[in-house]
Amino acid sequence: MAVKRGIFVVAGYGNGTGTGSASAEVFAKAGYKVALIARGADHIEKGAKKIIQDGGEAKAFPLQSYDSASVHSVFESIKAHWPDEAIRVTLYNAAQGIWKPFLEITPEEWDTTANINLTTAAAFARESILSFKDLPLNELGKRGTLLFTGATASIRGNKTTSAFSAGKFALRSLSQSLSKEFGKQNIHVAHAVIDGAIITDMWKDRAPGKYEEWQQNLDGRLSPESIANSYLYLAHQDRSAWTWELDLRPAHENW
Amino acid sequence: MAVKRGIFVVAGYGNGTGTGSASAEVFAKAGYKVALIARGADHIEKGAKKIIQDGGEAKAFPLQSYDSASVHSVFESIKAHWPDEAIRVTLYNAAQGIWKPFLEITPEEWDTTANINLTTAAAFARESILSFKDLPLNELGKRGTLLFTGATASIRGNKTTSAFSAGKFALRSLSQSLSKEFGKQNIHVAHAVIDGAIITDMWKDRAPGKYEEWQQNLDGRLSPESIANSYLYLAHQDRSAWTWELDLRPAHENW
Amino acid sequence: MAVKRGIFVVAGYGNGTGTGSASAEVFAKAGYKVALIARGADHIEKGAKKIIQDGGEAKAFPLQSYDSASVHSVFESIKAHWPDEAIRVTLYNAAQGIWKPFLEITPEEWDTTANINLTTAAAFARESILSFKDLPLNELGKRGTLLFTGATASIRGNKTTSAFSAGKFALRSLSQSLSKEFGKQNIHVAHAVIDGAIITDMWKDRAPGKYEEWQQNLDGRLSPESIANSYLYLAHQDRSAWTWELDLRPAHENW
Amino acid sequence: MAVKRGIFVVAGYGNGTGTGSASAEVFAKAGYKVALIARGADHIEKGAKKIIQDGGEAKAFPLQSYDSASVHSVFESIKAHWPDEAIRVTLYNAAQGIWKPFLEITPEEWDTTANINLTTAAAFARESILSFKDLPLNELGKRGTLLFTGATASIRGNKTTSAFSAGKFALRSLSQSLSKEFGKQNIHVAHAVIDGAIITDMWKDRAPGKYEEWQQNLDGRLSPESIANSYLYLAHQDRSAWTWELDLRPAHENW
Repeated sequence: MAVKRGIFVVAGYGNGTGTGSASAEVFAKAGYKVALIARGADHIEKGAKKIIQDGGEAKAFPLQSYDSASVHSVFESIKAHWPDEAIRVTLYNAAQGIWKPFLEITPEEWDTTANINLTTAAAFARESILSFKDLPLNELGKRGTLLFTGATASIRGNKTTSAFSAGKFALRSLSQSLSKEFGKQNIHVAHAVIDGAIITDMWKDRAPGKYEEWQQNLDGRLSPESIANSYLYLAHQDRSAWTWELDLRPAHENW
Repeated sequence: MAVKRGIFVVAGYGNGTGTGSASAEVFAKAGYKVALIARGADHIEKGAKKIIQDGGEAKAFPLQSYDSASVHSVFESIKAHWPDEAIRVTLYNAAQGIWKPFLEITPEEWDTTANINLTTAAAFARESILSFKDLPLNELGKRGTLLFTGATASIRGNKTTSAFSAGKFALRSLSQSLSKEFGKQNIHVAHAVIDGAIITDMWKDRAPGKYEEWQQNLDGRLSPESIANSYLYLAHQDRSAWTWELDLRPAHENW
Repeated sequence: MAVKRGIFVVAGYGNGTGTGSASAEVFAKAGYKVALIARGADHIEKGAKKIIQDGGEAKAFPLQSYDSASVHSVFESIKAHWPDEAIRVTLYNAAQGIWKPFLEITPEEWDTTANINLTTAAAFARESILSFKDLPLNELGKRGTLLFTGATASIRGNKTTSAFSAGKFALRSLSQSLSKEFGKQNIHVAHAVIDGAIITDMWKDRAPGKYEEWQQNLDGRLSPESIANSYLYLAHQDRSAWTWELDLRPAHENW
Repeated sequence: MAVKRGIFVVAGYGNGTGTGSASAEVFAKAGYKVALIARGADHIEKGAKKIIQDGGEAKAFPLQSYDSASVHSVFESIKAHWPDEAIRVTLYNAAQGIWKPFLEITPEEWDTTANINLTTAAAFARESILSFKDLPLNELGKRGTLLFTGATASIRGNKTTSAFSAGKFALRSLSQSLSKEFGKQNIHVAHAVIDGAIITDMWKDRAPGKYEEWQQNLDGRLSPESIANSYLYLAHQDRSAWTWELDLRPAHENW
């Protein structure tokens, strides 16, 4: 079924080698205009440039802070930039990994986790749903798709994940509540439990020597492109059988 | 990525209007040779004929009983029928819905549930894995994919589902154990939680007048074709990011 | 609150050093008449003798097989033995641990798992509920309590637990369905997820030298007496706040 | 086993007719000194007075705000008040019910949910664990018990619970992570999923006429005293078999 494209919005672009950027590229190749949101302008401007060089359409939308007003105004900017297009798919990929013994986590880190996974996530979801809710149904019988990136920590707390996991549980819960509340309006909300290691450039410095080996090991590490393809798949499921949650892990992952 | 096709085996074909037959047709259209397994010959012979008329390749493999020896011999027949092809995807779709107050369920019904979801399911899984394990990796980095059809009852027991749900929990558990055990050998095992109503022909008699209305309601009922497309998607996930479990439900489902 | 005692029935007594026997002893000390069910007479006859020596009341009820008719007739014998008492608490503690690579599990082992966790469990549950349902409410506002022993494998399939876990998932599901169906009739059904090692006598031979050390380690191993105390606690919860499921593990367990 | 008592701390006392106050009274009767924490002084001062009249020992510790520094200083005040006693059990019962369609929830409400269930909960947990960790083991082999009050919304997001449930998921995750991290230090962390209605005084005005009827219906509503008894049970479980999570619901609850 040919599905009319529109705008794809991603928050949490990362450094250009992880899930956020891979998703931007996959949706761009699939014909979506891509809006990149992040707090810093650097990575997303490079990211937009790369997509344009590859023949796609993209633009960076840096924001000052992740508060509700900023999230609202960035969505306004996106709509103003492509006035003839509808936002059809959004991805909330923002995260902050805090892996520490509980007693070492600071109140500020708790606030950060809370903001990213509750307040800001809710603001992003709100703008997504407001963007979708008055659109006509597309060929798939849906108005829009809101995607969330989860992790193993979304379904299991563990020894050094008390903060990270609390946030990810909250985010997963949000995605489930929204899926139940807005399904009736043909808005699709989905959550992916990413279970395993993604080898981003960050590991070049952290694990020199190992990095290349890990990168090659397609059985042992998650490919951001494959994750992104799953997001495209979810976005293109039709209304008669769509998914709230799936897990994604490499073949040899111990779980 | 062009994925080399092979044989697709489905057990639990149904009456030709549900998930089993839709999966057979979707995999046939995608280029797989399709082996249809069921206890009665009628439906699967009609099903094979239909696929052949549509330009696909299929054959019915009726079996007398669902014991381990029969399951083994039916796999032998399938291999003998297509000696140059490999079994690459199998789907265990067999189920028996027993929805009754607990005190009305007979010991025979408990045995039936136990056989379908444990003994026979294990036999089918065994033959699938034995078929896959010595195959070369395909383009996706996998040897084969074993799919299981689950239900809401796979994750939640309820008032009239004590028998049905006990079986479905067991089947889900089997799929999870196998996913963990055989991932290391690049064998992909996945489980779909089908949450909602599939309007098969059975409902023509049970709910006359309603049947047509329900059939039209793509927001409220599961399309077998869409489920089957999800199965094809799972079978074609690559080894770097594959799914053990996803749920599938219509947009307006209350859950 | 003084709770009137009655008969406590336990199936799956074990060898006299595990959960089954500890439960028998704890309920006997609490004033219950204790009916011990097992396939072999040896252990339960010794067990009954021990309880009687300690001042309690108990009797062994060996059965030939675990089919539905045998389970029914053993409940009849129990009622006939204590005609003035009501069966108030029953515990299904039967299990068969099958930990093996999937391909080594025989069809007979699958049947065993299926029988213990579905067919026989359902027969035991049936007799329990039939025993409870016409009793007057006790001081706690309940007619009876049916307890099930679960395991980590009840909630997570794993590499060598494909059979064990499939059975335990089924049993957990049964307990949940029954809890939902019979709560309305003031029958309490509960399930305990036992997560960790119980050091029974069996380990004397299997791990000589280690056995004593493990036995002493109250942080690392489950005490059958403590599990049994939890069962007594569950049996004495009142109708206004009772538990379907709790987990039990030693303080230092890795989970 | 006679367990030496100490101080019981409860945050989230409520209006004097719910779980917080019932827990205070049950632990007081069991011999604990009871420290009542809340933002407003009124209810907890009445609560302390009532406990003292009943022969117990209690004191109100109002705090200005629920930030980390305030939580720290309130624990200091508690220790200063009873210098010869150890804090042995703490209960985090604070909650704010926000039940609204998602689009009506304000950023402030998201912040509130985030603070109560992440930042403040973490601060309370931190003070609890710091209070426990250098204590000698008690007769049960534990240093202290940290309890959390959860809800159905802790395990299931729903249509009007997007904020409430996100918070409760986070809190549940926190309790699980802490249970895994601090079990090794013989600190017991537990979480109760309260599933059903507690009929507090609040309902006198909201549902006049109904209130008395509901209060009487012990099959249909949760008794705060019974919940409190469960908390006492959890606090007195020994190290060889303790519980992270249990659910509590009335007999006739639909679930």
